[in-house]
Amino acid sequence: MKKFINNYDNLIDEMLTGFAAANSDKVERRAERVIVRKGAPFKDKVGIITGGGSGHKPALIGYIGEGMLDAVAVGNIFAAPGVKICYDAIKSVDSGKGVLVCIGNYSGDLMNFGTAVDMLREEGLDIETVIVNDDVASSPKDKRENRRGIAGEIILWKVMSAMAESGADLKTMKKIGDELIYKTRSLGVAHSACIMPSSGKPSFEIGEDEMEIGVGHHGEPGIKRVKMMSANEITDIIMEQILADLPFGKNDEVSVILNGLGSTSLLEMYIIYKRIDEILREKNIGVYKSWVGEFFTSMEMGGFSITLTRLDEHIKKCIDHPVNAVHFMTK
Amino acid sequence: MKKFINNYDNLIDEMLTGFAAANSDKVERRAERVIVRKGAPFKDKVGIITGGGSGHKPALIGYIGEGMLDAVAVGNIFAAPGVKICYDAIKSVDSGKGVLVCIGNYSGDLMNFGTAVDMLREEGLDIETVIVNDDVASSPKDKRENRRGIAGEIILWKVMSAMAESGADLKTMKKIGDELIYKTRSLGVAHSACIMPSSGKPSFEIGEDEMEIGVGHHGEPGIKRVKMMSANEITDIIMEQILADLPFGKNDEVSVILNGLGSTSLLEMYIIYKRIDEILREKNIGVYKSWVGEFFTSMEMGGFSITLTRLDEHIKKCIDHPVNAVHFMTK
Repeated sequence: MKKFINNYDNLIDEMLTGFAAANSDKVERRAERVIVRKGAPFKDKVGIITGGGSGHKPALIGYIGEGMLDAVAVGNIFAAPGVKICYDAIKSVDSGKGVLVCIGNYSGDLMNFGTAVDMLREEGLDIETVIVNDDVASSPKDKRENRRGIAGEIILWKVMSAMAESGADLKTMKKIGDELIYKTRSLGVAHSACIMPSSGKPSFEIGEDEMEIGVGHHGEPGIKRVKMMSANEITDIIMEQILADLPFGKNDEVSVILNGLGSTSLLEMYIIYKRIDEILREKNIGVYKSWVGEFFTSMEMGGFSITLTRLDEHIKKCIDHPVNAVHFMTK
Repeated sequence: MKKFINNYDNLIDEMLTGFAAANSDKVERRAERVIVRKGAPFKDKVGIITGGGSGHKPALIGYIGEGMLDAVAVGNIFAAPGVKICYDAIKSVDSGKGVLVCIGNYSGDLMNFGTAVDMLREEGLDIETVIVNDDVASSPKDKRENRRGIAGEIILWKVMSAMAESGADLKTMKKIGDELIYKTRSLGVAHSACIMPSSGKPSFEIGEDEMEIGVGHHGEPGIKRVKMMSANEITDIIMEQILADLPFGKNDEVSVILNGLGSTSLLEMYIIYKRIDEILREKNIGVYKSWVGEFFTSMEMGGFSITLTRLDEHIKKCIDHPVNAVHFMTK
C-alpha cells in the first residue's frame, strides 16, 4: 500500500497532532478527538459544529475558523465519532446561546450525535440539528429523508456560521438551515476508489474503463456504472439530474461547488467547470458564487461532485460573509 | 486513460475558459494564453509575473490575485509558453515601474522568457528575472545553478508581491529575491506518476513497492529509488538533506511549505507535518509560518515535497502581508 503513514492504530491521532501544530493560530485540540476554533466558545454567538469520519480532508477539520465551524468531533476513517466525542465537542462551543449541529445523513453520526444531544439537553443546553441529505443519487426524490449528505454540508456550514456571527438565534438558524438543505442538490461520479489504510484494499471495485455515477464518499453504490466518457458528456448527465431534481429553472440564482474527490486534477476540474458554466448560461440560471477545488474528498478517490444551491437575498449575504478557516477562506 | 477531458488539442484552452469563468472576480484572460489579475497593470507597482507549463495546479494561475501574481504566461502540459505569450504577459503588467519575472530553472522557460525580456528591454521596459532553483535533489550544492525550481517558487511570489505592493523598486526586489531563493531549499519524494494526457502513459515508471526521492515535477530522475517506508522514516531522510544543504541551524526561523503532489491525501500530509514539527523543535529551529496542502502539483502524482526558507524580519513582514489570490489566501 503506497501511503505515507506510520501505524494504522495511531493514524488519526498523529494526523490531529500535525494539524494542531500546523494551525495553532486558528485551532486548539480541546480533547483527543475534539478540535475547536481557538478561543471557543464565543460569547453571544450560537456555536456551530459538525463531526463525522476522517478521510475527507479538508473536511471536516479544515473548515474550523472565523466565519465557519467552531468545532469538529473527529471519528476514525469513514466512521462516526463516539458519543463522548460528540458530547465534548458540542459542550465546548456553547456560550449560552445554544449550539447548531450540522451533520451528514449517516446512521452512525445520527445515532451518536443524537445520544449526545439528548444528554446535553437534559443538562439544559439549547441544541438543534440540521441533517444534510443533498446527494440525489442515494435515494429517489420522494424519499429525500434517506439521501446521504455530501459536499452540500459546506454551503450549510458557510451560511449557518455567517448567521451565527451576525447574531441570529438558534431557532431561526434551524429553520433557514433546513430550507437551505432542501434547496441544495449534489451528484458525483468516481472512476477510481481510495485505498483503505486499514486493509490496503480499495473502497470499491471498478473496471479499467468504467466510472460510477452517484458513488458515495465511502464507496457506497451509485445509480449507474458507465464506460468512461468525455468531460462534457459526464457533466451533462450529472447536471441534468441535479437541475431536474429540485428543479432549478430560469432566473434562479445559484452557488456552485465543484468538488474534486481526491486525485482528480484541477486541470480537469476547470474543463468540467467550463461545461457547467455553459449549461447554466443556456438555461438562464445565474451563478452568484462558484467554488472549484477539493472541498470534501475521499482520500485519493478519482472523481468529482457538483453541488447547486438555489439562493435568495439573505443566503447571498451569508455567502458574502468573510471566512478565515484553516483550509477555506473567502473575502 | 481515466481523465475527465474532451479533446487533448483543446485541453489548455478549455481549462483556461473554465478558470476565467469561475474566477471572473479576480482574473481576466488578456490573450489566449495570458491570464492577468483583474485590472492589471497596477499604477506605481512593480508587476510580478511567472509562467511555465500547465499541469501543476493550483500553480501557476491559481496564484493570480491581490498580494500575489499579476499575470501568468501559460504553456502546454509540462511545456514552456512560447515567446509571444511571455512577451504579452510581461507587457500586460508593466505600469512604468518595471516587471519582475519569477520563473523556475527550466531551459525552455529560460529561453522563451529570455527572448521576450530582450525584446521588451529594447522597447524600453525595465525588467529583472529571478530564477528559482530550490530543488536540492537535482544537482550538487556546488552546482546550484543547475538545480530545478519546485515549490520554492511560491515563497518567492509571496515575498516579491508583498514588496511590490509596499512600493519597493525593481532593483531592490531583484536583490532580495535572489537572496530569498538562496535561503530556500526543497526536496520531494513520489511513489506514483501522473498520467500524461497526450499519451495515456505515466510520466515515469516505478515499482509497486518503490518510491523515488527527488523525482522532478515532470518525472525527471531523482537521486535515489527506495522501498516504501513509514511516513516518519521518509520525512527524516528528506529533512536531513534539506537541513544540511543550506545549512539550517539552531535559532533559525523558517517557513515550511509541505506540498502534496496531487493524490497524496491531507490525512497523510498532516502525519508528515507532525514529524517535521518534531524535527524542527528538536533542532531549535522556529517555525514562523507553515502551509500544508497542495500548492504545486504534478496532476495526480503521489508524493510530497518539503520547502524550508530561512527568514529575517523583513521576509517575515512580507509573509504577513495578506493575499487574496484565486487558490491561495492568507490573512
